[in-house]
Amino acid sequence: MSARPESDGPPSSARARGLTHVHPADVSLQAALDAVADPVRRAILRELAGEPDWARACGTFDLPVSKATRSHHFTVLRQAGLLEQRDAGPRRVNRLRRPEFDEAFPGLLELVLREPPAAP
Amino acid sequence: MSARPESDGPPSSARARGLTHVHPADVSLQAALDAVADPVRRAILRELAGEPDWARACGTFDLPVSKATRSHHFTVLRQAGLLEQRDAGPRRVNRLRRPEFDEAFPGLLELVLREPPAAP
Repeated sequence: MSARPESDGPPSSARARGLTHVHPADVSLQAALDAVADPVRRAILRELAGEPDWARACGTFDLPVSKATRSHHFTVLRQAGLLEQRDAGPRRVNRLRRPEFDEAFPGLLELVLREPPAAP
Repeated sequence: MSARPESDGPPSSARARGLTHVHPADVSLQAALDAVADPVRRAILRELAGEPDWARACGTFDLPVSKATRSHHFTVLRQAGLLEQRDAGPRRVNRLRRPEFDEAFPGLLELVLREPPAAP
């Protein structure tokens, strides 16, 4: 049991209070497959994998979807144990949970990351 | 390029004429994920994995779905390169394409096969 970031002090905002995480070990295969079965979510994962942890804010991804849909995709990925998020001022930054997801679902993330990007 | 069973002679029936196969190497990650993202299809795969090749006919699986839905699930699995089918008289028998699917999508089928069966 590791402390969650929001337990270090008072939550900075209502937005941050809603930021719950699920460890990949607690995720069902169904939820993991549903998370990666969407091409936009796979594009997010591939882009995150090419960057240092906490380097990318949600708003910096160039995605062909509305703001609400983008937010939904990040929530699905977080709840499937695929990414960790923190609020850094106005930005919500991300970390790909690669080692712990690989331990729970060996090979799955690798298939996603080696997939060629879709044609634009 | 390997010959397909139906090219060995005249097709035995209209049913057999429709039996096209896709090699896992020609399947997209999207199609592979869509195929295994359904719990009934994962149950079929787990059951097939416990039996010799060509031992099980489609009709012998105890599935909580209609005959048409069952048939659809087998078609999706065949078109995702997960199984091979043959007509043997009135029975349509199956082979799990485990080695060739594993080569195309390492780890994915293993995740499906080690998943605990759903509670009845």
